[in-house]
Amino acid sequence: MHAYRSQTCADLNKSHVGQTVRLSGWVHRVRDHGGVLFIDLRDHYGVTQILCDGDSPAFAELEKVRSEWCIRIDGTVKARDESLINPKLPTGEIEVYVRELEVLGAADELPLMVFGDQEYPEETRLKYRYLDLRREKLQDNMLLRSNVVASMRKRMWDKGFNEFQTPIITASSPEGARDFLVPSRLHPGRFYALPQAPQLFKQLIMVSGFDKYFQIAPCFRDEDPRADRSPTDFYQLDMEMSFVTQQDVFDTISPVIAGVFEEFGGGRKVDAPQDWPQISYRDAALWYGTDKPDLRNPIKMQVVSEHFRGSGFAIFAKLLEQEGTEIRAIPAPKGGSRKFCDRMNKFAQEQGLPGMGYIFWREVAEPSLQDFEKQVARTATSDILGVADQQFEQLKNEARNKWRKDRVKLGEGKYMEAAGPLAKNIGPDRTEAIRQQLGLDVGDAAFFLGGKPKAFEAVAGRARTVIGDELGLTDQNRFAFAWIVDFPIYEKDEETGEVDFEHNPFSMPQGGMDALDSDPLDVLGYQYDLACNGYELVSGAIRNHKPEIMFRAFEIAGYGKDEVEKRFGGLATAFKYGAPPHGGCAAGIDRIVMLLADQQNIREVIMFPMNQRAEDLMMDAPSLPTNEQLRDLHLRVIDPE
Amino acid sequence: MHAYRSQTCADLNKSHVGQTVRLSGWVHRVRDHGGVLFIDLRDHYGVTQILCDGDSPAFAELEKVRSEWCIRIDGTVKARDESLINPKLPTGEIEVYVRELEVLGAADELPLMVFGDQEYPEETRLKYRYLDLRREKLQDNMLLRSNVVASMRKRMWDKGFNEFQTPIITASSPEGARDFLVPSRLHPGRFYALPQAPQLFKQLIMVSGFDKYFQIAPCFRDEDPRADRSPTDFYQLDMEMSFVTQQDVFDTISPVIAGVFEEFGGGRKVDAPQDWPQISYRDAALWYGTDKPDLRNPIKMQVVSEHFRGSGFAIFAKLLEQEGTEIRAIPAPKGGSRKFCDRMNKFAQEQGLPGMGYIFWREVAEPSLQDFEKQVARTATSDILGVADQQFEQLKNEARNKWRKDRVKLGEGKYMEAAGPLAKNIGPDRTEAIRQQLGLDVGDAAFFLGGKPKAFEAVAGRARTVIGDELGLTDQNRFAFAWIVDFPIYEKDEETGEVDFEHNPFSMPQGGMDALDSDPLDVLGYQYDLACNGYELVSGAIRNHKPEIMFRAFEIAGYGKDEVEKRFGGLATAFKYGAPPHGGCAAGIDRIVMLLADQQNIREVIMFPMNQRAEDLMMDAPSLPTNEQLRDLHLRVIDPE
Repeated sequence: MHAYRSQTCADLNKSHVGQTVRLSGWVHRVRDHGGVLFIDLRDHYGVTQILCDGDSPAFAELEKVRSEWCIRIDGTVKARDESLINPKLPTGEIEVYVRELEVLGAADELPLMVFGDQEYPEETRLKYRYLDLRREKLQDNMLLRSNVVASMRKRMWDKGFNEFQTPIITASSPEGARDFLVPSRLHPGRFYALPQAPQLFKQLIMVSGFDKYFQIAPCFRDEDPRADRSPTDFYQLDMEMSFVTQQDVFDTISPVIAGVFEEFGGGRKVDAPQDWPQISYRDAALWYGTDKPDLRNPIKMQVVSEHFRGSGFAIFAKLLEQEGTEIRAIPAPKGGSRKFCDRMNKFAQEQGLPGMGYIFWREVAEPSLQDFEKQVARTATSDILGVADQQFEQLKNEARNKWRKDRVKLGEGKYMEAAGPLAKNIGPDRTEAIRQQLGLDVGDAAFFLGGKPKAFEAVAGRARTVIGDELGLTDQNRFAFAWIVDFPIYEKDEETGEVDFEHNPFSMPQGGMDALDSDPLDVLGYQYDLACNGYELVSGAIRNHKPEIMFRAFEIAGYGKDEVEKRFGGLATAFKYGAPPHGGCAAGIDRIVMLLADQQNIREVIMFPMNQRAEDLMMDAPSLPTNEQLRDLHLRVIDPE
Repeated sequence: MHAYRSQTCADLNKSHVGQTVRLSGWVHRVRDHGGVLFIDLRDHYGVTQILCDGDSPAFAELEKVRSEWCIRIDGTVKARDESLINPKLPTGEIEVYVRELEVLGAADELPLMVFGDQEYPEETRLKYRYLDLRREKLQDNMLLRSNVVASMRKRMWDKGFNEFQTPIITASSPEGARDFLVPSRLHPGRFYALPQAPQLFKQLIMVSGFDKYFQIAPCFRDEDPRADRSPTDFYQLDMEMSFVTQQDVFDTISPVIAGVFEEFGGGRKVDAPQDWPQISYRDAALWYGTDKPDLRNPIKMQVVSEHFRGSGFAIFAKLLEQEGTEIRAIPAPKGGSRKFCDRMNKFAQEQGLPGMGYIFWREVAEPSLQDFEKQVARTATSDILGVADQQFEQLKNEARNKWRKDRVKLGEGKYMEAAGPLAKNIGPDRTEAIRQQLGLDVGDAAFFLGGKPKAFEAVAGRARTVIGDELGLTDQNRFAFAWIVDFPIYEKDEETGEVDFEHNPFSMPQGGMDALDSDPLDVLGYQYDLACNGYELVSGAIRNHKPEIMFRAFEIAGYGKDEVEKRFGGLATAFKYGAPPHGGCAAGIDRIVMLLADQQNIREVIMFPMNQRAEDLMMDAPSLPTNEQLRDLHLRVIDPE
């Protein structure tokens, strides 16, 4: 018999009854039923119930084992009593009567229980990661991650891509974030850098004549702590292709991403790639207030400036007199209650805006004629004292007509009216025009934000998300994708007025050299992101492979030829020797696994993560170097004081 | 039509004749046949001949293109004349008549020609790596590497292994080589290290309850330059399993390795895994003079001390009076010529030994009776002047009998005799005993080395290799594997006399705690290497997972409990919480690809290698940091002076 096991803890069933077996695993749970010891023995594959009583020579030893001891047992497979069968467990029909025991690895008192759902502070979880990893959720997450990455590889191979490894100890790649540096021992005073991404290398692979590259690539950025990202490194499905257009890249990567989500999405609906919309960066900002919209949420914002220009709502009317301002509406179907609208207004205030104006539409019954009489009478008392009856009747009718005119008739005696201070200020005609533009109805609401879009767009986007969530409009059971395209190449620094790259300096401007000769802020790039459920999953571009266009593009952003040669000399030189048109993208693996595993914290999908202070509590990193190490590297640490 | 290509440069054949096609690729070679221009257009997939003459509107433009320009052409597929068909080319039946041309990427004058076999200095090749990579050999090598790695992954998945990524920015792993350090910005004065191997992490994965781990893992060592290794990093197929014996690891990884060699070995014979011998470290040293023997070479060394003890060969006889000395023989079948033997003796001298004694066996014809008469007569003249005829006859016969006795009769009048000074010194009986022990015959030779084995073993091993190669004994068309097992855990430092780890400190001693209580130098480990054709391809061990045995093992090597806790605290602590027995190995990917690609230099199988001074000439790394970077990292560079 094998030294440790004849079967795993997931293998045994009724067909094994009577057999002598050997199992190894961890003591998951011990129950002492007075003279009979039941233990759930757990390994990577499953759990098997083992038991023992005083008749067994192993009993005395088995009584001593505790949770998470690693043991090997020999025993006999027995059928469970009908009443004790556990249908939820693959091994639920049997149990193993223990005759021999070997303790493979005992355990001290546990700082973290594997069995059960007790919560532990993150510090404990990270310091004793190997115990935390034995718990079902993390085991599942790690297997999911492993399977997702394997599936990505298979899908890329199937599409004719080759995986190539690019250097990890290299020169800085100019992605804009901070590099991790690695001091060189052989070259005193010089440093390598860990790559922020393999972008330059994958472009060089294309220049080298390979056609389809991919890599599950580690990327390193010395980032400041943030909850949802690793402070040191992350993994990308990185790919690049030669002789392709933007659409070719979409057609290649979309089915890979969709396939992974279908395979591991646990039955959640996955939009078919052919239905993924392509939304311009500009439209995404307008419609969704973000370049990574959550399209599960059906709300689409609209510009409604015209309805407020010269209106009685002075704040917006005045605002619109300034250049570059706009009023945008967030339609909120089914959000038509004052309570909800006030809550959203408060949300906007919490997000740093003065507030969000709103209108909501409600059903009202037409007042009775007496009500109109009272209204007219009240007026009459003050203004038209002593008018004739006929005139009084006329006034009453006029009041009713006006009331009717300001509302939309829904049925006999039933009307829809717009409520909220904003509606009152701009009057019923404008209100109704807004309602019609937004396609809203009784029970719906709309929120309004005004100013320079950059100033409120992000809050508008967040408000849209909250509205969609609170009103139950967002389908939680779906993965909704959209390609965001036509990113501007440049942006203007609001303070300095200088033009700099908005995104990636290596993207091809749409229109090539000609486009660069017009207003740079109008130049769009062949640059794209894939958004899914509010996250950016993929980012990429068709690259600028023509040296003359590349140098001109950098020049506009204020980088002279010398500086480009200095900073990106390897690539700039390579482009002089017959560079092919090429493009690609990179998909964030940690993020994809987080979405699939429904986790909010990146540390739940990484085997051995750092904490937020970029410390490895288990391995004790970073740590103090020895003097010899520092001497070898020709370095001295400067006291921060 | 697609913007860049309707087909690749490998796709077109007779079935496409008459079609209008679009191709993109590089100008591989231009031939100007006076008014007709022929160009081999190359892409990643193949080569297509395109042509153009003055009738085409593209002619004037096409005349301007030069080698390695990247172009797109539109044209018509034409059948080649029967006499011009190139059967070696998949597209050799057709050519494309060019009607339109677009230059996608022009090229400056080339520092390195892609077409042809011209050799370039390594500096040029590395600086313009993207041009070198366009050449067929490197294209092939890179694809081979990519395919080998993909095949490894598939084979590991098929065996139920999961690939998990372990940290790259982490704490030092104590493999004994020098770490690359990464200064921490957030923790002034502290450093991370890049892992020398994921060993600690894979052991922790086992402690975490995963059962079968693998990873194509980058490993980082700050090594001093050496021709056949990368000065910074290399890749391993790293694997680990729980609840396994040494044989389980062999049974798992052997078919993976064999499968890869069969798949990519280009038809060379691959020994079947069930035939791979398991050779103890001690036997390997004796038989092959190395722990990574080349078993394609049939030569097996033997101890022949007894034949020299008290013999007339004083050097060896005296040597053997010292303790710990041995005489070993290298049999050299078919090496029986004085010329060859002298060359090998010289080889040994070049390797720093005083020389190698030898014997070789040759066929001789029995001298005629007259020859014996002369011999006896010559003797007679001086010693036994005037003896009787009968006595003379007897002497003659005695001389012949002695001659015959000192030789081995091969046939009528044909004898085998041992030649060389050594044979003369020890006499025919000992010589013949040696011959019989070594199983040699006419035309063979044997070489002899003596002393303390450690002092000459390595040279003996190299001599064995040279002998096998020179005599054509080594089958160049085969991959021969052997597991080397039973490595000693400890070795004694010859100078200090102190006991230290011979190999990996984390291996389980055979015999466990009991073994550690005996002479440490006798303790063998469950530790193993896989040798192939003279290279170490795989190295691994069953780990020491029991804290008490681990601490005792370190204690013997002079490491106190505190130091172990300090250096390997993460693992030592983990073992206190129910560690399973586990073991695994790592296979060197660069080395495997080198063997398969028949390359001697590791830079031929790495996409973007460093040079031997650990410089990336293309990307200019390592480079000077900015002052800001140094300030961020709280570091100052010390002037080496």
